[in-house]
Amino acid sequence: MSYGCIVDQAVCDLGRRTGLPDLASHIADRFPTLGWEADLAPDYSLSAIRYLPVIPDPRKVLCVATNYREPGDDGAARPEYPLVFSRFGISQTGHEEPLPKPEVSEKFDYEGELAVIIGKTGRRIAEAEAMTYVAGYSCFNDGSVRDWQKHSSQFTPGKNFARTAGFGPWMVTSDELPDPGALDLVTRVNGETRQRNNTSRMIFPIAWLISYFSQFTVLEPGDVIVTGTPSGFGSSRQPPEFLKIGDTVEIEIERVGTLRNVVADESQNQDNFR
Amino acid sequence: MSYGCIVDQAVCDLGRRTGLPDLASHIADRFPTLGWEADLAPDYSLSAIRYLPVIPDPRKVLCVATNYREPGDDGAARPEYPLVFSRFGISQTGHEEPLPKPEVSEKFDYEGELAVIIGKTGRRIAEAEAMTYVAGYSCFNDGSVRDWQKHSSQFTPGKNFARTAGFGPWMVTSDELPDPGALDLVTRVNGETRQRNNTSRMIFPIAWLISYFSQFTVLEPGDVIVTGTPSGFGSSRQPPEFLKIGDTVEIEIERVGTLRNVVADESQNQDNFR
Repeated sequence: MSYGCIVDQAVCDLGRRTGLPDLASHIADRFPTLGWEADLAPDYSLSAIRYLPVIPDPRKVLCVATNYREPGDDGAARPEYPLVFSRFGISQTGHEEPLPKPEVSEKFDYEGELAVIIGKTGRRIAEAEAMTYVAGYSCFNDGSVRDWQKHSSQFTPGKNFARTAGFGPWMVTSDELPDPGALDLVTRVNGETRQRNNTSRMIFPIAWLISYFSQFTVLEPGDVIVTGTPSGFGSSRQPPEFLKIGDTVEIEIERVGTLRNVVADESQNQDNFR
Repeated sequence: MSYGCIVDQAVCDLGRRTGLPDLASHIADRFPTLGWEADLAPDYSLSAIRYLPVIPDPRKVLCVATNYREPGDDGAARPEYPLVFSRFGISQTGHEEPLPKPEVSEKFDYEGELAVIIGKTGRRIAEAEAMTYVAGYSCFNDGSVRDWQKHSSQFTPGKNFARTAGFGPWMVTSDELPDPGALDLVTRVNGETRQRNNTSRMIFPIAWLISYFSQFTVLEPGDVIVTGTPSGFGSSRQPPEFLKIGDTVEIEIERVGTLRNVVADESQNQDNFR
């Protein structure tokens, strides 16, 4: 296991060059100078690697529930605060890894979201300063097991099935993408568009979320903020359309990339999902 | 920073002897044989050390809301599932460290609880096998900021203010305490008893919780399960009694120990609370 950067459709192994174990360590060590200029000879072709989650073992994954204005919502009042829950690192998986549909549920659902990766430690961050804390962006599929999400008022169980959240394919750094404020986000299942919105229509924008979270916790390099989903997830459809084994889920975000995972039969390969 | 064990009221530094950084690594390396027989000469007096949280940086802290039958409740039906939320590692602090009362709230509250530390990796654990996964027990004060806990339906913000949960003083191993099923638990504020119950009266017992959590996530060595609190926390009192700067909070659990923290003025010493 290592981490790297992409140069001309190939992978340059940065772990070998820096001696650091993962991207979170690289961020902690080098932010805001995340680029690597010297010795960028490619080590692997993109098709030869397996993708880990962008941050495999984050200290915090702070998630927001639905966070987009939909057509017709523009006059609606914003709630005072978003719904905030968290995912454990082990609930994540990488780009092109299988997404195990839990055997215990037939209500496995997708949620396409923009993930924000934090670059430096901060507490009580002003909204005006918040974007200077961002190391980069990725796509996130906040895979949700709806019946377990509703076992009680708290979402934790349904949001934490092992390996049910795709996180990738990679991080686009905030110097490559200085303004994430107007990016198209599309979720497709088997090629069919299920969610479509634009980050300009977030109810609680990224800077607001960073500032709010930093009022209670200390944000640290490699922390992940998952910024919420538009309408069109399976349980919001009439009738509901949940994921089935073999379905392909793609989350495409403009200027970030396309995260792709295929839903797999959990019982066939349990060791892969631990 | 290191970890150790207590011998004759003194501390034997195990980190120096094992080369491991912390108790979670020790558990991952050695469970179920957590004891250390050789070379137990004491290194420090108990009064000379500062206590870290028992597990300073857990991958998971799985918490349950109120989980005790109170007098008069015995005939009541059990809800089907408990309320489950999580805390980030940085929301914890050690025995005898200050508990910062957040400046943004006057509703800082205590909750005395038994913490369970997981010893080995497991998924889909049967209730009958669950107790074999336990490395040990400690006291936990699930410090809660009630108004921020109610910003939305999800408890995350109010349960995650930095350094607001005491976790200690130490772990008593499951071979020292094979049956945690009938332990008195008492919370005192400034010496006055505020909560009193017995682990025999948990609504969802430890083995049930381990089995349930392992249905969705992979439990790993050093994961922490905080098993819920009896009535008598500040917001449950008539009138409510929240914590003030200078208050001493003690959580005493029979055969486990007494966790003690004094509520501190957050604004006086912010660097201590990061």
